[in-house]
Amino acid sequence: MGIKIHGSPFSTATLRAVAVVEEKGLDYEFVNVDMKSGAHKQEPFISLNPFGQVPALEDGDVKLFESRAISQYIAYTYESSGTPLTFNDGKQRAELAVWMEVEAHQFDPVASKLAWELVYKGMFGLETDNAAVEENKAKLAKVLDVYEARLANSKYLAGDSFSLADLHHLPPLHYVMGTQVKQLFDERPHVSAWSKDILARPSWEKSLALQKQA
Amino acid sequence: MGIKIHGSPFSTATLRAVAVVEEKGLDYEFVNVDMKSGAHKQEPFISLNPFGQVPALEDGDVKLFESRAISQYIAYTYESSGTPLTFNDGKQRAELAVWMEVEAHQFDPVASKLAWELVYKGMFGLETDNAAVEENKAKLAKVLDVYEARLANSKYLAGDSFSLADLHHLPPLHYVMGTQVKQLFDERPHVSAWSKDILARPSWEKSLALQKQA
Repeated sequence: MGIKIHGSPFSTATLRAVAVVEEKGLDYEFVNVDMKSGAHKQEPFISLNPFGQVPALEDGDVKLFESRAISQYIAYTYESSGTPLTFNDGKQRAELAVWMEVEAHQFDPVASKLAWELVYKGMFGLETDNAAVEENKAKLAKVLDVYEARLANSKYLAGDSFSLADLHHLPPLHYVMGTQVKQLFDERPHVSAWSKDILARPSWEKSLALQKQA
Repeated sequence: MGIKIHGSPFSTATLRAVAVVEEKGLDYEFVNVDMKSGAHKQEPFISLNPFGQVPALEDGDVKLFESRAISQYIAYTYESSGTPLTFNDGKQRAELAVWMEVEAHQFDPVASKLAWELVYKGMFGLETDNAAVEENKAKLAKVLDVYEARLANSKYLAGDSFSLADLHHLPPLHYVMGTQVKQLFDERPHVSAWSKDILARPSWEKSLALQKQA
């Protein structure tokens, strides 16, 4: 049986699920979903995710979708393998929940929009909307001001060790760091050190290696 | 000490936090944050949430923000009080995580946009954008098709009992059910039964009662 991740190595949500399995050092099979031909909107994929979005996970008879639900499932089910990515203490668990929500509702919408405008649109031959870039850079700067204050007091977002709250940032973070947006990170010393630290994790390098095989 | 919820009874995110505390039958103090005067963007509130958004929670020395982090904290910390809103079994916990993510990423953006256009804009004397209403009704119809299939096999979204995955829907669901959008729910028998069931919970009535005191 074993773990199967269905997705595309160019999808940020897929990479989020892959990164958690790599951090845990688990064996898995990667099943490429050919999004160009619309395979994510058809059977057999839509039996795994009726919303037709990658990734989906199979682990024996467990079938899941939504990248952050997959990451939590893997982190709790394989708690004792590889890197601990969650906390047992109630107060630290609450901090983890807060910063996972911050990633999902404050960071991701803005960073993913910037990645779309500055990276993905180029891949598809579409024109960047400069007004949208400026608007989202201004929003991201405000979010990173909060992160800078947080990371001045805590090495990682949810506490003193790397956790799901940090890991969830990796895919869009990777993409925007190859653009003009990098400056917003460089200007903030704690944010800069944190982003370098998490992007340098071997698990992330292994996750990105899937793109070379595609 | 005890539990304090800081927020506005007209904010959907605040009502989500209130509903979970009511389901758990816990005593709490509601601290009104006067959003009209911008109190959520100033001290003392921004010490509770540096992003300046309601609600925030205090429980002894625990201080949290983001409504879905608050709800998870309350549900796990007070697991044995009131209604159980989570699951202990690993597979059921995974389903809970999936459907909490579905609410946050598939349902809420669309339902909240419809509530904004059809309810809140009227309160503020702003004009409804009919094109945005039609676009989001079409999106919501697709989401509710998935819910209909799910709820044909499972009384509630994450399993056979009411959980956080259902509860998180209540505030925007309440608002859109007072508009033309109700028809999308009425047309789907399992979705219709589910929405009536969860909106009729005494905890939700108690949560809304805060609006009368405001």
